[in-house]
Amino acid sequence: MSTPFRMHRARVETLVDGVFAIAMTILVLEVKVPDLVDRRSAEELLLALWHHGYVIAAYFFSFAMLAVFWVWHHRLAEKIRDIDFPLLVCIIVFLSLVCFFPFATALLGRYPLNLTALLVYVPLTGLIVLVQTLFYAIAIRRKLIDESVSTEAMLMAHRRNLLGCGIFVLASVPTLLRLDPFVALGGAVLGGLIFWRAKKLAHLPGKPIDAASKRNI
Amino acid sequence: MSTPFRMHRARVETLVDGVFAIAMTILVLEVKVPDLVDRRSAEELLLALWHHGYVIAAYFFSFAMLAVFWVWHHRLAEKIRDIDFPLLVCIIVFLSLVCFFPFATALLGRYPLNLTALLVYVPLTGLIVLVQTLFYAIAIRRKLIDESVSTEAMLMAHRRNLLGCGIFVLASVPTLLRLDPFVALGGAVLGGLIFWRAKKLAHLPGKPIDAASKRNI
Amino acid sequence: MSTPFRMHRARVETLVDGVFAIAMTILVLEVKVPDLVDRRSAEELLLALWHHGYVIAAYFFSFAMLAVFWVWHHRLAEKIRDIDFPLLVCIIVFLSLVCFFPFATALLGRYPLNLTALLVYVPLTGLIVLVQTLFYAIAIRRKLIDESVSTEAMLMAHRRNLLGCGIFVLASVPTLLRLDPFVALGGAVLGGLIFWRAKKLAHLPGKPIDAASKRNI
Amino acid sequence: MSTPFRMHRARVETLVDGVFAIAMTILVLEVKVPDLVDRRSAEELLLALWHHGYVIAAYFFSFAMLAVFWVWHHRLAEKIRDIDFPLLVCIIVFLSLVCFFPFATALLGRYPLNLTALLVYVPLTGLIVLVQTLFYAIAIRRKLIDESVSTEAMLMAHRRNLLGCGIFVLASVPTLLRLDPFVALGGAVLGGLIFWRAKKLAHLPGKPIDAASKRNI
Repeated sequence: MSTPFRMHRARVETLVDGVFAIAMTILVLEVKVPDLVDRRSAEELLLALWHHGYVIAAYFFSFAMLAVFWVWHHRLAEKIRDIDFPLLVCIIVFLSLVCFFPFATALLGRYPLNLTALLVYVPLTGLIVLVQTLFYAIAIRRKLIDESVSTEAMLMAHRRNLLGCGIFVLASVPTLLRLDPFVALGGAVLGGLIFWRAKKLAHLPGKPIDAASKRNI
Repeated sequence: MSTPFRMHRARVETLVDGVFAIAMTILVLEVKVPDLVDRRSAEELLLALWHHGYVIAAYFFSFAMLAVFWVWHHRLAEKIRDIDFPLLVCIIVFLSLVCFFPFATALLGRYPLNLTALLVYVPLTGLIVLVQTLFYAIAIRRKLIDESVSTEAMLMAHRRNLLGCGIFVLASVPTLLRLDPFVALGGAVLGGLIFWRAKKLAHLPGKPIDAASKRNI
Repeated sequence: MSTPFRMHRARVETLVDGVFAIAMTILVLEVKVPDLVDRRSAEELLLALWHHGYVIAAYFFSFAMLAVFWVWHHRLAEKIRDIDFPLLVCIIVFLSLVCFFPFATALLGRYPLNLTALLVYVPLTGLIVLVQTLFYAIAIRRKLIDESVSTEAMLMAHRRNLLGCGIFVLASVPTLLRLDPFVALGGAVLGGLIFWRAKKLAHLPGKPIDAASKRNI
Repeated sequence: MSTPFRMHRARVETLVDGVFAIAMTILVLEVKVPDLVDRRSAEELLLALWHHGYVIAAYFFSFAMLAVFWVWHHRLAEKIRDIDFPLLVCIIVFLSLVCFFPFATALLGRYPLNLTALLVYVPLTGLIVLVQTLFYAIAIRRKLIDESVSTEAMLMAHRRNLLGCGIFVLASVPTLLRLDPFVALGGAVLGGLIFWRAKKLAHLPGKPIDAASKRNI
C-alpha cells in the first residue's frame, strides 16, 4: 500500500509566512493617492487625507489583526509534528481566507458605515478564528502533536483557542445587534457557552492550569 | 571538463514558494470594491457584491487550484536530488504559467459565460499539469531521483501525474464540447488513453524503466 | 506557572524579509505607464517620462531608504537571542510602518512640492527610526541580547541607533523650517541633544569606542 | 578596532529570492482584463486579447529575462563567502533595478514600436548585466570568494559574466541602430572588445578552459 500523505511542516510554514507577508503589504494598496485640483495646496491634500481617515485606520487595524492571526497560527503550528491531508486542507482554507482579508478591509475602509461591509468583515474574521481552532482540534484528534509538548500545554493551547473564539463572538455582538436583536442574543449566549467550555477544559487534566497563562495569547 | 550545471533544490524551492504565495495573494486584487451611489445603503452594496459573485467564486476556485499545484509540485520536487539545466527550464516555464494564472482567473471571473475566457483558463491549467508531468518524467530519465525513493514510489508518483493529466483532460471535455463536438470526442478518447496508460504503469513490476516512459509525456 | 511567551527569531525574520521584499517591489507600482496620444511618438513618451521624473526619483530614493532600514534591522536582530512579547509588538509596529512606506512614497512622488506630502513622509521615516531604536533599547533592558555579543558591541549598536535618530532629526530640519521656524529650532536642538547623548554613551564602558566604527551604520 | 561590516549570505539571499519572486509575479499585473461591449461575445474578447498580444509576449519574455538574472545571480552568489559593505550596496542597486523591470516591461508591452520604450528597457537590462558583473569583480578583488572555489572556476565565472555583457551589447546594436548609426557602431566595437577580453581571460591561468563550459551560462 502507498505511504500515508505527509508534508514537512517547515515547507508549509514558508508558504504561510509568504502569504501573510504579502496579505499584510497588499493592505496598503487600498490607500489610494488622492487627486488634487491644486497640486501644491497643502490644505487640500490634508483634507483629502482626512477624508481617507477610515481607510488608513482600517489599514492599521487589519494589519494588527493579520499579525495576531500570524502569531496565533505560528504558536499552534510549532506544537505540531507533521502535516497530514486534513490539516493541509485546513491550512489552505485558512490561507484563502487570509488572502481575502485585504478585500474585506478595502470594503470596510471605503464604506465604514455600511452594514454589508461589516457583514463581510466580521464573519470573515470569525471564519479565520474558527478554522484556526478547528486546525488545532484536528491535530489533537489525529495525534499529530509533537511529543515534546506536554498534555497540559496541549490542552492549554486548545483552551486559548476557545477563549479566542469566545472573545470574537462577544466582540461581534454589537454588529449582530445592528442586524437583529435576537441574532445578537444568540451570539451572546454562544459566546458564554464557549467561555464555559473553555473553563471546563481548564480543570480537565490532573494539574489545574492557572489563569496567568491567559496573558500569552 | 567543466562541472555540469547543478542547482540546490532548496534554493529553487524558495523561489517556487515565493511565487506561489504571491500568485495566490494577487488573485484577490481582481475582486474590486464596487462603487456605490448611496454609500450607506446596505442593500446596494449587497447587490453589488452579489453581481461580483462570479469573481469571488473564481477567486476561491483558483486559490484551490493553485494550492493543488503547489502541493503536487512539492510532492514531486521532494523526490528529486538535484536540479539540472533542463529541470530548471521546466520549473521556470511552470512558474511563468503559474504567475499568469491570476490574469486567467480575472478574465474568467469577469466574463464567466464567455467561451474565450474558458479557452484561456482551461488550456493554461492543462499546460501547468503537462509541464508538471514533464518535469517529473525528465527527472526520471536524467536519473535525478533521490536514492531514498524506492522504484515503486517513483513509478507511483509518475502514475499519479498521468492520472492528474487524465482527470484534467476529462474535466475539460464540457468546455471542448462548447467549441466543437469532434474536439470533445478527441479529448474524451485522449483522457481514456491516459487512464489506460496509467493503469498499465500500475502493474509494471519494480523494474528499471527504459523506453517505456518515453512516449508518455 | 506557564512558560513565558517566546518566539524563534528565525521565524519572525522570515516574515520581516518577506514584508521588506514586497514593500520594495510594490514601490514600483506607483510608477504608472503614461497614456500617449500618438503611440509611436518617441518624443511624447520621453516627455511623459520626464514629467514622471519625481515619481521615478522617489522610487529609487525610497528603495534605498527601505534597504537601509532592512540592513539596520537585520544588524540589530542578529544580536538578539529570543523574541518576547514586547519585542514582537515592536516588530509588528515596525512592519506596519514599513508597509505604509509605499503609500507615503507615492504621495511624495505625485506631489513633490506639497508640504503635506512631506509631512507624511518625514514623520513616517522618523517613526520607523524611532521604533527601530526602541526595539533595541527594549531588548537591552529585557536582557535578550545574545551572550556572544560583547558589552562594547551591544553599546556601540545602541549608540549607532542614537546617531541614526540624530541624523534623521537634523535631516528633517529643512522640512520643519517650511512648517514653522520655532519647530525647526526645536528639531535642531533635539538633534544636538541626541548626538551629545550618543557621544556620552561612547565613553561609558571601559574601552573607548573609536570613531572608525561610525562608518558601518 | 571595530569589527568590519559583514552580513550572512543566506540572509541577503532570502531578500533577493523574495524580490525576484515578487517582481516576476508583478509582471502579470500589467496584463489587464479588457473591457467588452458584449460580455458574452467570444470573438470580441479574442480580438481584445489579440490586441494585447504584445503585452502578453512582453510578459513571458521579461519573465524569462528575470529568471536568467536570478539563476545568474545565484550562480555567482554561491561562490561568495561573505557579503561586505560594497557588495551589499551592489546587491541593493541590483535589486532596485530588478524591481524597476516590471515598469520597463509594461512600457514596452504597451508601446512596443516606440523608441523611448526600448530606450528604457534595453539600458535597464544593460545596467542589470553590468551591476551583476561588477558585483562579482568586486568580490574577486576583495577576496571574498569561498575557499572551496578553485581559481579556474572563479575565473571561468568572471569570463562568463564578460561574455554575458558582450552578448547583451551585441544584442542591443539593432536598438542603437534606430537611434544613431555611429552609436550602433560604437556598441558593436565595444561588444567585440568585451568578447576579446573574455577570450584573453580564458587563457590566463595554467589550465585552458574548454569551450564546453560556455553552455552553462
